[in-house]
Amino acid sequence: MTEVVTMGEAMIRLTPPDHQRLMTTPSLEVHIGGAELNVAVALAQLGVSVAWISKLPDNPLGRRVDAEARRLGVHTSRVLWLPGGKMGLYFYEKGVGIRAGTVLYDRADSAINSLSLDELDWDFIGRCRLFHTSGITPALSLSVRKLTVEVLRRVTERGLTVSFDVNYRSRLWEPLECRAALETILPLADLVVCTERDAGTVFGLFGSGEEIAQGLRRLSAAQAVIVTHGAKGVTAATEDGAFFEAAMVTDVVDRLGAGDAFCAGVIYGYLKGDLRLGVRFGLAMAALKHAIPGDWFIGTKEEVENLLKGEAGGVKR
Amino acid sequence: MTEVVTMGEAMIRLTPPDHQRLMTTPSLEVHIGGAELNVAVALAQLGVSVAWISKLPDNPLGRRVDAEARRLGVHTSRVLWLPGGKMGLYFYEKGVGIRAGTVLYDRADSAINSLSLDELDWDFIGRCRLFHTSGITPALSLSVRKLTVEVLRRVTERGLTVSFDVNYRSRLWEPLECRAALETILPLADLVVCTERDAGTVFGLFGSGEEIAQGLRRLSAAQAVIVTHGAKGVTAATEDGAFFEAAMVTDVVDRLGAGDAFCAGVIYGYLKGDLRLGVRFGLAMAALKHAIPGDWFIGTKEEVENLLKGEAGGVKR
Amino acid sequence: MTEVVTMGEAMIRLTPPDHQRLMTTPSLEVHIGGAELNVAVALAQLGVSVAWISKLPDNPLGRRVDAEARRLGVHTSRVLWLPGGKMGLYFYEKGVGIRAGTVLYDRADSAINSLSLDELDWDFIGRCRLFHTSGITPALSLSVRKLTVEVLRRVTERGLTVSFDVNYRSRLWEPLECRAALETILPLADLVVCTERDAGTVFGLFGSGEEIAQGLRRLSAAQAVIVTHGAKGVTAATEDGAFFEAAMVTDVVDRLGAGDAFCAGVIYGYLKGDLRLGVRFGLAMAALKHAIPGDWFIGTKEEVENLLKGEAGGVKR
Amino acid sequence: MTEVVTMGEAMIRLTPPDHQRLMTTPSLEVHIGGAELNVAVALAQLGVSVAWISKLPDNPLGRRVDAEARRLGVHTSRVLWLPGGKMGLYFYEKGVGIRAGTVLYDRADSAINSLSLDELDWDFIGRCRLFHTSGITPALSLSVRKLTVEVLRRVTERGLTVSFDVNYRSRLWEPLECRAALETILPLADLVVCTERDAGTVFGLFGSGEEIAQGLRRLSAAQAVIVTHGAKGVTAATEDGAFFEAAMVTDVVDRLGAGDAFCAGVIYGYLKGDLRLGVRFGLAMAALKHAIPGDWFIGTKEEVENLLKGEAGGVKR
Amino acid sequence: MTEVVTMGEAMIRLTPPDHQRLMTTPSLEVHIGGAELNVAVALAQLGVSVAWISKLPDNPLGRRVDAEARRLGVHTSRVLWLPGGKMGLYFYEKGVGIRAGTVLYDRADSAINSLSLDELDWDFIGRCRLFHTSGITPALSLSVRKLTVEVLRRVTERGLTVSFDVNYRSRLWEPLECRAALETILPLADLVVCTERDAGTVFGLFGSGEEIAQGLRRLSAAQAVIVTHGAKGVTAATEDGAFFEAAMVTDVVDRLGAGDAFCAGVIYGYLKGDLRLGVRFGLAMAALKHAIPGDWFIGTKEEVENLLKGEAGGVKR
Amino acid sequence: MTEVVTMGEAMIRLTPPDHQRLMTTPSLEVHIGGAELNVAVALAQLGVSVAWISKLPDNPLGRRVDAEARRLGVHTSRVLWLPGGKMGLYFYEKGVGIRAGTVLYDRADSAINSLSLDELDWDFIGRCRLFHTSGITPALSLSVRKLTVEVLRRVTERGLTVSFDVNYRSRLWEPLECRAALETILPLADLVVCTERDAGTVFGLFGSGEEIAQGLRRLSAAQAVIVTHGAKGVTAATEDGAFFEAAMVTDVVDRLGAGDAFCAGVIYGYLKGDLRLGVRFGLAMAALKHAIPGDWFIGTKEEVENLLKGEAGGVKR
Repeated sequence: MTEVVTMGEAMIRLTPPDHQRLMTTPSLEVHIGGAELNVAVALAQLGVSVAWISKLPDNPLGRRVDAEARRLGVHTSRVLWLPGGKMGLYFYEKGVGIRAGTVLYDRADSAINSLSLDELDWDFIGRCRLFHTSGITPALSLSVRKLTVEVLRRVTERGLTVSFDVNYRSRLWEPLECRAALETILPLADLVVCTERDAGTVFGLFGSGEEIAQGLRRLSAAQAVIVTHGAKGVTAATEDGAFFEAAMVTDVVDRLGAGDAFCAGVIYGYLKGDLRLGVRFGLAMAALKHAIPGDWFIGTKEEVENLLKGEAGGVKR
Repeated sequence: MTEVVTMGEAMIRLTPPDHQRLMTTPSLEVHIGGAELNVAVALAQLGVSVAWISKLPDNPLGRRVDAEARRLGVHTSRVLWLPGGKMGLYFYEKGVGIRAGTVLYDRADSAINSLSLDELDWDFIGRCRLFHTSGITPALSLSVRKLTVEVLRRVTERGLTVSFDVNYRSRLWEPLECRAALETILPLADLVVCTERDAGTVFGLFGSGEEIAQGLRRLSAAQAVIVTHGAKGVTAATEDGAFFEAAMVTDVVDRLGAGDAFCAGVIYGYLKGDLRLGVRFGLAMAALKHAIPGDWFIGTKEEVENLLKGEAGGVKR
Repeated sequence: MTEVVTMGEAMIRLTPPDHQRLMTTPSLEVHIGGAELNVAVALAQLGVSVAWISKLPDNPLGRRVDAEARRLGVHTSRVLWLPGGKMGLYFYEKGVGIRAGTVLYDRADSAINSLSLDELDWDFIGRCRLFHTSGITPALSLSVRKLTVEVLRRVTERGLTVSFDVNYRSRLWEPLECRAALETILPLADLVVCTERDAGTVFGLFGSGEEIAQGLRRLSAAQAVIVTHGAKGVTAATEDGAFFEAAMVTDVVDRLGAGDAFCAGVIYGYLKGDLRLGVRFGLAMAALKHAIPGDWFIGTKEEVENLLKGEAGGVKR
Repeated sequence: MTEVVTMGEAMIRLTPPDHQRLMTTPSLEVHIGGAELNVAVALAQLGVSVAWISKLPDNPLGRRVDAEARRLGVHTSRVLWLPGGKMGLYFYEKGVGIRAGTVLYDRADSAINSLSLDELDWDFIGRCRLFHTSGITPALSLSVRKLTVEVLRRVTERGLTVSFDVNYRSRLWEPLECRAALETILPLADLVVCTERDAGTVFGLFGSGEEIAQGLRRLSAAQAVIVTHGAKGVTAATEDGAFFEAAMVTDVVDRLGAGDAFCAGVIYGYLKGDLRLGVRFGLAMAALKHAIPGDWFIGTKEEVENLLKGEAGGVKR
Repeated sequence: MTEVVTMGEAMIRLTPPDHQRLMTTPSLEVHIGGAELNVAVALAQLGVSVAWISKLPDNPLGRRVDAEARRLGVHTSRVLWLPGGKMGLYFYEKGVGIRAGTVLYDRADSAINSLSLDELDWDFIGRCRLFHTSGITPALSLSVRKLTVEVLRRVTERGLTVSFDVNYRSRLWEPLECRAALETILPLADLVVCTERDAGTVFGLFGSGEEIAQGLRRLSAAQAVIVTHGAKGVTAATEDGAFFEAAMVTDVVDRLGAGDAFCAGVIYGYLKGDLRLGVRFGLAMAALKHAIPGDWFIGTKEEVENLLKGEAGGVKR
Repeated sequence: MTEVVTMGEAMIRLTPPDHQRLMTTPSLEVHIGGAELNVAVALAQLGVSVAWISKLPDNPLGRRVDAEARRLGVHTSRVLWLPGGKMGLYFYEKGVGIRAGTVLYDRADSAINSLSLDELDWDFIGRCRLFHTSGITPALSLSVRKLTVEVLRRVTERGLTVSFDVNYRSRLWEPLECRAALETILPLADLVVCTERDAGTVFGLFGSGEEIAQGLRRLSAAQAVIVTHGAKGVTAATEDGAFFEAAMVTDVVDRLGAGDAFCAGVIYGYLKGDLRLGVRFGLAMAALKHAIPGDWFIGTKEEVENLLKGEAGGVKR
């Protein structure tokens, strides 16, 4: 039985190798990224039964996304298909040192924008335990925004836990627009993850991690809220109080997807009834993700556990 | 002084290396293609002063197209820029043997669709001798179709020779729609190139090369019409009669852009007042293009001339 | 419901790129190959529900084989796992022109050799319609040979159709040893595929395609026997008589797996009750496979159908 | 109108990828480098109209240098061509950590050594505002040394500002030989850049940044002298006094060309009448250059400005 | 005349490029590694005449190992060949930051396991000065363990100095098994190198570097014992007392083989009668090795000497 | 004991991958080529003990040539070294179909030009059986030309057989200059190989293969003369008469070095006293060489013998 279902867009990611520039690179590496699919992939690596719901164009690029998700163990049988649709793309130039990484989206009018409520397999979704999506999904378009709210309503009615990652994207919408949408969405969420930065930008929440977390709890009435402080660590708050866990320091091979790997860890612990375990898993997974090319946490639960036992770096032989 | 100006869309082309499939390739090679830019690049290799007019998004992908055209010697100072615009893309899987090559376009709503008549530098265009475009340009959208017709009217008024390559693309429009548009365009053209296949599909012209060519002459009132018969050769027809030239046989590294290299050769000869020379140049260039990766004829006039002298293949050392 | 199940070993294949030699190549391309998995992958591309049964080492190489089979649509939930086991490998140097391709196996004592009858999920297998394996499986070791015979007995008892590809491998066993084993196996098979060359080497069957096919029918009592004549074509024989279909000529990118793609086509037609359709599908798939890197037919049913309609080569745009 | 003109040699640079050694690397990456062309490329990225003067062999390597400079926006119409000439080359093995990078020159008798005064287009040069060259140019050969001095005399006569980067290369000449030559050249320069290390090695100038700068001012009578202190920062001295700016710290992808990117920033500010702005631009550009493969600063003025605003690293999305 | 002879297994090493995972990498880089061959290669780079003894399969992989060792200057004429034998392999995923590197061996039943005493060319070995092997060799199998002891007995009888690197590999044997074997081997060794960690794990020796070194001296009666403390440095102990040398800090491109490069430096100094020089050489070589891809120290004595003079990093030009 | 010694220049060869052009390729493949070293490498593959004599610059590029020759089994202990010398280079763009391959030499003033007679180890050379060089060596410079003649005189005095490949290079000298030089050299040769084309261009010899061969025999007084007719085959003539052997047809991966592989085969047979065997070996090796990247025949005697037995193409498994 599928425990977790996530919903959102995935894109083909095209990245110049070896720190080259889009202006001059002779080739592009192909990866796949999308916050909710990234979370699903990371959960599947931990052995969690997880499905991903989306709409893809019925062409080789769309079929590739489906196939690679399946390769990594994500159930994709409920993905919907749009003949002639557009595959979302993004061009990602990695940063290094003071050189900033940049993302150039080419996702307007992509297939997911035609997703509708009645296309979804509600029997299937209803049998899952937890539904996850992020603030990127309602940012895609007005129609997807409406859909997201409706979907969240239905899944809560069916008794699923809702996990939500705020994931504010300044290239997709403005803070005020985001806030308005999320004021409808957050009250439907049981588990909320938000960066300290987004909390300030979108909700005007500043202060200590605990203060921000409690602010978000008030907005959302979620059981658990986790505020992430970048390279420092995270603050988790529930009705039982708050705790802080420090992030793991590591070198960076590929920065993208670390937040999603973190969410997967949190969800993993949440499903096991141990939020602190989830936060620790999440931090270890986010750190490992930094050392893995692409948006996806490709690894094993054993690697995460070894890291939590303190076995970092070196060579095992 | 710039002799030739071409107008049309160029796209970033993304191709799996080593005959891999889009479904599974880990990387994509980056090239640039677009019929009219391809013609401009090929003309520049022959030493012709040539400009390309288009509209590009003001992002690294758009700037790359501009830069690479300039690298190959094409004047791009009249290219227009659209902040926030979309770069046209296409994914090209090379065929080999019986495996067909496939093209997946992602060019809807690309920057060129916002090009307008009054953005063009008519002083600059007016000083050129020959204007070239192809049937792909009016196929892009209704607005570009109108623009194309207006542009052709103006350039003929200014005394430029108009060269037109029919270039029917079944993924962009239907034969009837194409025919209707071209019935307005062809009468404005002095030099027309058309494949035997397109002549049949679009205009219902069948028969010998000469018959098809004369049929197109009647539709267009062009001074010269050239019908290409794929790997066989071409038939050129003027008021002085028709002649046939056989194609050169070669191995295939990359099939795209060969027709555009041919057009460049024809224009080169036409400008020199020697259509037969142009046809021969065109056939040699099309053959060489098959052996060069990407859509562009990258080479020298000397290579073309050596080929016409019969020096094919081997190693010079 | 799963229609087809195949059983056999799959190996990691390591190939020097660009026609380099194992002696000096700086890198190796990673593919996956194994006759029965190749058949399963090709069937999945046609939309057939297909599972593959095997035993893999529980390490990243074994998990990769499982994941990539799943990526291409093969059900792998019944694959068995051997902690600490060895992944079978083979090094494949592609030939070109008169340079022969070479295969260097490193598969001794690989995980599949510990596969036992009672590990298999007989409920699952019993619900399938057709079971496929090849002569490579009983060649792996004596224990796998015994297992193969027992498995075939059980699946026939459960009413599955048995498809068997002779696939003689001179690096694994001698003709006499092979013949002895296959004399037990062939009578259990309903559908037999054999190259003309193997028929001669292993069974001493020579003569016309039809004579060889009938000879194999007598040995096997199969409903249908197909003898393949390399680049010439194939002869299929049933109780209703024999027919010949010519092979499609193509260029070669990667020769391996073409026979398995052929088998998949045959099985596809066989399941549809149309052996001739299957043979035609098989020949088209074998030809396409030659143009696709790796051992696997990665493509679509539409491509096969287009080829059968006569649309070969060129570029679709 | 062209504002800046630089003169010097450019070479094809060949670099083993992935930190490999020249002894064993199977391939070499192709870049182009040459101090004065590097400066021109970096200025073009800032939107400055800039030309580069040199002499290249009329072969594919020479034409490549011309084409790539043009791609990045440098005017190359005044480059001179030597049929049968030699293209300068250098092999560059990147260092990492304590492993030193190494440069192996193959530039003896390259095309630029035949450059003569009367080949230059003095009308064109006379219309520019600033002329830049470096101490590498007079180091190439005696004839180029004489030429350099004559050129500098003429450009000062024509009222151009002269910018000069000392750029001592121990593999090309000895400190005493360099000093003798530069004692003729520096008095012709208005803007001088010199590393602290070269100031000591060549001119015996030691002490604080300001002391060294003032020492160089006395030798050169330049309006502005900038002494660079490697990873620490730079000291700029004019008649109005001296100031220090700290360097930006970053990770290193490719160390070469950072000094030239710095010079470009300084020239940019100098032309705008704001030396301090130039120094800051230069430091930001040098830091960014460290994160970009090849000798060239490929980027935008916007990126430099963002860095000066404090937006370093991270990912924009 | 050959001064040094080393004996042990070498394997083909297969590594995903660019920090990719074995699960998904499309290609693998080919290197060669094996502790004793690594030492031989590093000695050859210093100009020491050195031979390597082993047994290889007579196939392209085995011949490759022989050829690459010869390329780097190691005498391989005494390598023995096993027709049909298995080449040892290992898959190495590089770590980065907190992501641990992992080694997956595929070396069971490789060719060296059939090596026998009387196959060795004792005339040749008898003319050498120093014999080196490591604790990996006796760990391969019981037969190789016996062989190792016998070989060490014979070489000591013939008056060769014996150098031994403890090199405990937890994936090959248990500490107790290792200790038992080494209690026979160490008394035959004149020069012993051991990591602080292995000293604790295998021999239960803890404490200061000097204490551990003296503990090992008692076990081995070696003239010199060197204990390495990872990134900190090493302690060397002889009857004349002990000294400490700090390690050089550097960035890591490839961690493997650094210990072997260190041993080579130590042997180099030992042969010159200057252990401290050897330790310094070894530390510089280990540091340089970290910056060189693959298991081998590929470089020059001049580079080591420059490093010891304090010339680290930067670019020489 | 070394049987064969060859003398000549070797160069680093730099080739764009995948049929790219020098103008635009982002990388170059590194190979090593030089007619006489190519012959030595091919002989070493057949198991012949062979040395190569040359002079190399003492830098990483020179050391690489030495190391790679040694890797392939060529004795290089008599190679001489020139500190600060120049490594000869050539850029090779592969042709395909009608696109001609092109060679751009950068070998002027390379290290071999300083080779002098008394640097050679005449004791070593005197112990060999056969000396081989080609017409490229005397074409390098006047000093090397003189040296070549003197060397050939000395080796004939010492009783070595002299093998000479005419190998006319139009980019190095004129036919008349070549003829004058070869009129001195050919009388010193016992075995002469010449293309039909060179025989005409340089010596004005036309007609049947036998007529040309006899013409060359008169010029050279060689025991055996072999005239090669490109893809057709070769004519061999001795005092016992002439015979023709047809070439083997194959696909082309890399055309360079095929003539040198042929020479190696001829020398192999000549040394065995069976010229016809040598010619057949040579033709098989030339054909195989076409299918192997780089200038070198990398393979085994077994592969050549299999080809002569008629086992061409296919896959062995």
